Amino acid sequence: MSKVRYGIIGIGNMGSGHANTLKSGAIAGAELTAVCDGIESKRAWAREKWSDVAVFEDSASMIASGLVDAVIVACPHYDHPSEAIQAFAQGMHVLIEKPAGVYAKQVREMNDAAAASGRKFGIVYNQRMNPLYRKLRELISSGELGEIRRTNWIITNWYRPQAYYDSGTWRATWAGEGGGVLINQCPHNLDLWQWTIGMMPTRIRAFCQNGKHRNIEVENDVTAYAEYANGATGVFITSTADAPGTNRFEVTGERGKIVIEDGKMTFWRLREPEPEFNARNRTPFAGPECWKIEIPDQGPSPEHAGIIRNFTDAILSGTELVAPGEEGIRGLTISNAIHLSSWIDGWVDLPLDEELHLAELNKRIATSSYRKEAPAADASKPADLTGTF
Amino acid sequence: MSKVRYGIIGIGNMGSGHANTLKSGAIAGAELTAVCDGIESKRAWAREKWSDVAVFEDSASMIASGLVDAVIVACPHYDHPSEAIQAFAQGMHVLIEKPAGVYAKQVREMNDAAAASGRKFGIVYNQRMNPLYRKLRELISSGELGEIRRTNWIITNWYRPQAYYDSGTWRATWAGEGGGVLINQCPHNLDLWQWTIGMMPTRIRAFCQNGKHRNIEVENDVTAYAEYANGATGVFITSTADAPGTNRFEVTGERGKIVIEDGKMTFWRLREPEPEFNARNRTPFAGPECWKIEIPDQGPSPEHAGIIRNFTDAILSGTELVAPGEEGIRGLTISNAIHLSSWIDGWVDLPLDEELHLAELNKRIATSSYRKEAPAADASKPADLTGTF
Repeated sequence: MSKVRYGIIGIGNMGSGHANTLKSGAIAGAELTAVCDGIESKRAWAREKWSDVAVFEDSASMIASGLVDAVIVACPHYDHPSEAIQAFAQGMHVLIEKPAGVYAKQVREMNDAAAASGRKFGIVYNQRMNPLYRKLRELISSGELGEIRRTNWIITNWYRPQAYYDSGTWRATWAGEGGGVLINQCPHNLDLWQWTIGMMPTRIRAFCQNGKHRNIEVENDVTAYAEYANGATGVFITSTADAPGTNRFEVTGERGKIVIEDGKMTFWRLREPEPEFNARNRTPFAGPECWKIEIPDQGPSPEHAGIIRNFTDAILSGTELVAPGEEGIRGLTISNAIHLSSWIDGWVDLPLDEELHLAELNKRIATSSYRKEAPAADASKPADLTGTF
Repeated sequence: MSKVRYGIIGIGNMGSGHANTLKSGAIAGAELTAVCDGIESKRAWAREKWSDVAVFEDSASMIASGLVDAVIVACPHYDHPSEAIQAFAQGMHVLIEKPAGVYAKQVREMNDAAAASGRKFGIVYNQRMNPLYRKLRELISSGELGEIRRTNWIITNWYRPQAYYDSGTWRATWAGEGGGVLINQCPHNLDLWQWTIGMMPTRIRAFCQNGKHRNIEVENDVTAYAEYANGATGVFITSTADAPGTNRFEVTGERGKIVIEDGKMTFWRLREPEPEFNARNRTPFAGPECWKIEIPDQGPSPEHAGIIRNFTDAILSGTELVAPGEEGIRGLTISNAIHLSSWIDGWVDLPLDEELHLAELNKRIATSSYRKEAPAADASKPADLTGTF
């Protein structure tokens, strides 16, 4: 194979963005050959925009056409796993949009299907391409920060006005999306929270507020506390109603702390590890010598294009995936655990009780204001996504 | 009265500092006439240092001497209320060191005694003199930030090495101090957390880790989540083992957010309140216009001297107290609620169940490694407190 022929499943906001990226020629070795969408207005939009791209009503016929080698799954969250499983069964390579799914149980089935297929499986965790977070991960995995003691992510700059929530009847509903800020806005952050430090929590206690300052049924204000196997603790705070909000990720280790804020990384580095200082020090009010280091700018992030390029390279030449699809379950498991902790008003241990989570989610779906029977009232053209991810 | 004659109860680290402040002449209308301490080496140190200050073994004889009009209570935490109550009974004005006491129940009795005495009652919440926090309080009370939505205080820069904990057998024990970082280092922050925003939490869920990276029996790593009556939430994180740690206080309101970090205050101010923007906006991915404002430097903090000056002025000319002693119970109640939530591993509603808190504290005192019978192994000279408060 010299070129990967892509088909996109769902050309809503994200899918149309990927289509534009592919059509722009930015991805060597990749071409867009087909798209599919269940909504006629979107298909008409696609036919008008690209004369050389085949347009289908559903993914089965698109895949059966023989026009595509790989699919990008960009349909509503709930359908990511089922679309991926079907595509793997037809020999497709599969790149799924985030979140991997809505509940870990269905994502586990997708991961099994991916493993059985032997095809490439990726997830659009484009923020893993951000050199800031890559650098943080490298500093931690190489031991520069020492053992991790604390993580604090205040990621409250996902501002979404009521007009956003009113733009689709499926938005911010248990039946339509399966959650709020955790499922829609935060999958990247929840992934990076574990990917950069290389540790999953062992238990979580979380507090979700539903419909905070917004007329929606799902959570849009979350505070989560996490504990890790090594005794470290973490806090994750997010919101869609705060303005302007904050995006500040702080990681503390035995050798100081690293803060990413406003696109800059600062490393307050201890000259000697804290445990060593503490062991030799005999002065009550002394502390280890600390250097404030401004980590050099790591350059721009290739974002979505970077993920599609990496996925294409993986298919064509076996390049290692930056965001293997199988890893989508990690951030989603944290997301599910945060929901479940808030729902049961108690601790949630990891590995997650996926059956219990699904049972509790289903209770909420049963009373959701959204009914899947109702056709989604989407606009025929993609929204302006400036400022989203 | 033209001059307030002060006696200091306990001339350990803090008491000797107050003595030096008074002897320096920095406080107009105040003079140090007496001190008392139960430890002979400290009395000897005082006699050698000041020939014109009377030195007593205990507060009762110091007060009975007729040499003092007001006392500063700077003995170990547990004894603050009993010393204050005794002093009020003898007609003294009383300025107590923080914390007001170790448990809210005893502090309530002290507050009652103060009210009955008609004397001035203050607490050394010297950080209320810090113009940064005063400005924050003013910006909030005047409505510049609008209704409060979120507070985040990461106050992990209370670094204390093992040598600090080893410097007194009473330190960091349930019987000797009644707690760790919450009782010793954080009373200022816990006070400011409620004083600046003008709201007490309605319930708290907290997670304390005891002896984190230190050989001590009490908590030195704390994450607390708070909810307020108006739906706002808050997080308070503290530690004595993180280095270099962080001191970042963020308050979010309807009109933006204010951050105090590194001694600087920044106000991200929305041009119009978020609820008004949200009500009129029809664009899904829009947000309110925001201005980043650097609040001008508010000048140096008079700290302890400022509190003693204010207390002296209150006695001499009725000046309003910046830190009325009765308000010490607020921060302590939050402190007690954080402990209790962690101990019972559940929610704690405010107003606090003070009896339950005391019962749980007493369980821990019963198994404490410190026994009050053992004389405190204090150094005869005060420690260098550079970097403490």
